[in-house]
Amino acid sequence: MAVWDVIRQWKLQEKDYRVIDHQAIREITLGASILATGGGGDPEIGLLWTYKVLDEGKPIVMVDPMKVPDDVLVASMACLGAALVLTEKPPSEGVLNRAIVKLETYLGAKLQATIPIECGGVNSPVAYAAAGELGVPVIDVDGMNRAFPELQMTSWVTHGIHASPTVSADDRGNVTVIDTGSDDLLAETICRRVAMAYGGISWIATYPMYGKAVKETSILYSQSIAWAVGKAVWEAREKHLNPVDQVIKSLRNERSVEGFKAFKGKIVDIHREFGSEMTKGFTLGRITMEGFDSDKGRTAMLDFQNEWLNLVVDGRVRCMPPDLIAILDSETGEPIRTDIVKYGYRGTILLIPAHERMRTAKGIQIFGPRHFGYDLDYQPVEKLNKDIERRDA
Amino acid sequence: MAVWDVIRQWKLQEKDYRVIDHQAIREITLGASILATGGGGDPEIGLLWTYKVLDEGKPIVMVDPMKVPDDVLVASMACLGAALVLTEKPPSEGVLNRAIVKLETYLGAKLQATIPIECGGVNSPVAYAAAGELGVPVIDVDGMNRAFPELQMTSWVTHGIHASPTVSADDRGNVTVIDTGSDDLLAETICRRVAMAYGGISWIATYPMYGKAVKETSILYSQSIAWAVGKAVWEAREKHLNPVDQVIKSLRNERSVEGFKAFKGKIVDIHREFGSEMTKGFTLGRITMEGFDSDKGRTAMLDFQNEWLNLVVDGRVRCMPPDLIAILDSETGEPIRTDIVKYGYRGTILLIPAHERMRTAKGIQIFGPRHFGYDLDYQPVEKLNKDIERRDA
Repeated sequence: MAVWDVIRQWKLQEKDYRVIDHQAIREITLGASILATGGGGDPEIGLLWTYKVLDEGKPIVMVDPMKVPDDVLVASMACLGAALVLTEKPPSEGVLNRAIVKLETYLGAKLQATIPIECGGVNSPVAYAAAGELGVPVIDVDGMNRAFPELQMTSWVTHGIHASPTVSADDRGNVTVIDTGSDDLLAETICRRVAMAYGGISWIATYPMYGKAVKETSILYSQSIAWAVGKAVWEAREKHLNPVDQVIKSLRNERSVEGFKAFKGKIVDIHREFGSEMTKGFTLGRITMEGFDSDKGRTAMLDFQNEWLNLVVDGRVRCMPPDLIAILDSETGEPIRTDIVKYGYRGTILLIPAHERMRTAKGIQIFGPRHFGYDLDYQPVEKLNKDIERRDA
Repeated sequence: MAVWDVIRQWKLQEKDYRVIDHQAIREITLGASILATGGGGDPEIGLLWTYKVLDEGKPIVMVDPMKVPDDVLVASMACLGAALVLTEKPPSEGVLNRAIVKLETYLGAKLQATIPIECGGVNSPVAYAAAGELGVPVIDVDGMNRAFPELQMTSWVTHGIHASPTVSADDRGNVTVIDTGSDDLLAETICRRVAMAYGGISWIATYPMYGKAVKETSILYSQSIAWAVGKAVWEAREKHLNPVDQVIKSLRNERSVEGFKAFKGKIVDIHREFGSEMTKGFTLGRITMEGFDSDKGRTAMLDFQNEWLNLVVDGRVRCMPPDLIAILDSETGEPIRTDIVKYGYRGTILLIPAHERMRTAKGIQIFGPRHFGYDLDYQPVEKLNKDIERRDA
């Protein structure tokens, strides 16, 4: 099947889809990487994969979610594991294709589109590459509008759609089909253990669902949001504007939310849980930053589990999951990720309110502060940073 | 399909099969439980299941392996996990059926017989119960002629047949399909982790293979051996004979091998690795026995990983895997298992040479002493106990 056949079948008009070229996927991936909250892995891995697909002449087309027919089957493709391992072990060709074929066989039906699982340097472009390979569109949604470490941490689960069946493959031909019905936490547990058994990284085809569910349970226009953020940083670099301010402006335009510049400083300490990639399947640890400029004399601490989890400045909590934390290089706007963060890196911490579909009561239960072991009730980032708003005003 | 249709299709004569009734399965399970080397779990669980099938009027027929057509597809059904958990969490109806159906769907073909994976109190009768449910025969073979803790520890693997795909199910409807090609150790690792994620116990359909492979790679007539051992103990109980001597005699008749009465004593110390069922997926530990009668003043030590692994008497190694260790109640011949062994139990340690198909170089590599962490070259039990032979003579 070619993607244009699908576009015709779905009776889409030109305004209903966007053709994705090299520059588009670069911008989307940059934006996704910023929204990835310190996780999501090395964008180069996913980008190279997508470039290859484009260079082979396979078109990649992104479709407006509200134009997707109710009855078409779609699924997510993603890398699940510790990003640090991925950097040392980039994917081999065919691994995702194998997962997709096994998922289709298990379901007895063909996929007609891909949906990115999250905003992340790897998993965003991977959904585009897979769509190009399959000859189907990628839908302008995802399950988080950020990155999160665990499989069940999606708006899909909080709105009643499940991760089962998930097919997990590795680059040596191993395949595991995980079918846990409505027990998404068990699906995560098994997927994680399988990824560790594979050597730290797995490639999954997951969250099979119909078009109707995509519309009702996804973060809609998540790709457009990432794209706008990426474009803003790209423009800031070209015009020598402040990239953090440009990101804030783009989020205001695209999502009508306000980001917070919560801290400016440099990383003075990193504690990594040794071997956590292999024993727990995550990159785990904590960083400490010392402030400079207007934050001189202040100290920031961030825990991470693949993604930054929380921000505490001078003992006061400034951000809790599921709200987003990005540490951006003040010059380039490039995000500082948990898998590559090093002593001496300098950056601005930007806090972004989570998407409203991530802030439901069920969402707070599944991926709020208590799930990650904090004895705290969730408070929105807007409330925790009222004083910053005042200070900026 | 009814089993008699299969018998007709395979053109079997009366001498090629045995109809299994309540007494037959009791005897086979008792013998299997003795050959299970301290593992294999509580026979009552598998027996009750088989009785139920028989009581529903479903015939169970055991077939001579050499009469099985080359091109029929068969598979094993088994419980994988820590036997101790099984005792607390007996299986619910349908769990194995679900695994079988998923295996057939994944393979795109129907199973035409079952093959027991091992000699064990649970997994022997389970293969009979599953055969009765499916309306197919059970073949007079297994993959060990003993019990072993790990999935890859079979004559099938050492002769080039693989455990993939394996379907693992639990009693809440969860299913995982594990397909690791020729990497049987990875299949074991994933199956074990899945079993732990399920809560300690899983039910698997595994080792799909054709009739030709059954003949070339199984332990042939393994069920008949277990049956002979079980019958011998049954007879000993009825005629007030020494059950251990009767077991030795039955093995001499059926397998032309000599067992060794290596130690008579009582259990004076048990060290269990706390929580190993949930952290490692096995029942792990060590027992110490103090001798009496002719063994007075001597001390025996046995490690266990679901099964007894080795026997050391007064610091001298008397048995290494894959040779068999049974601790039998001197009165009843009932085996003392690792999951129920208690302080004060009295028994005779019987050592039995492993089947020749388990003693190949590849077998010693996969389930010999070094695999279990002993810095020892494998030596056959006959060699390690020459002096006992002399003492008995």
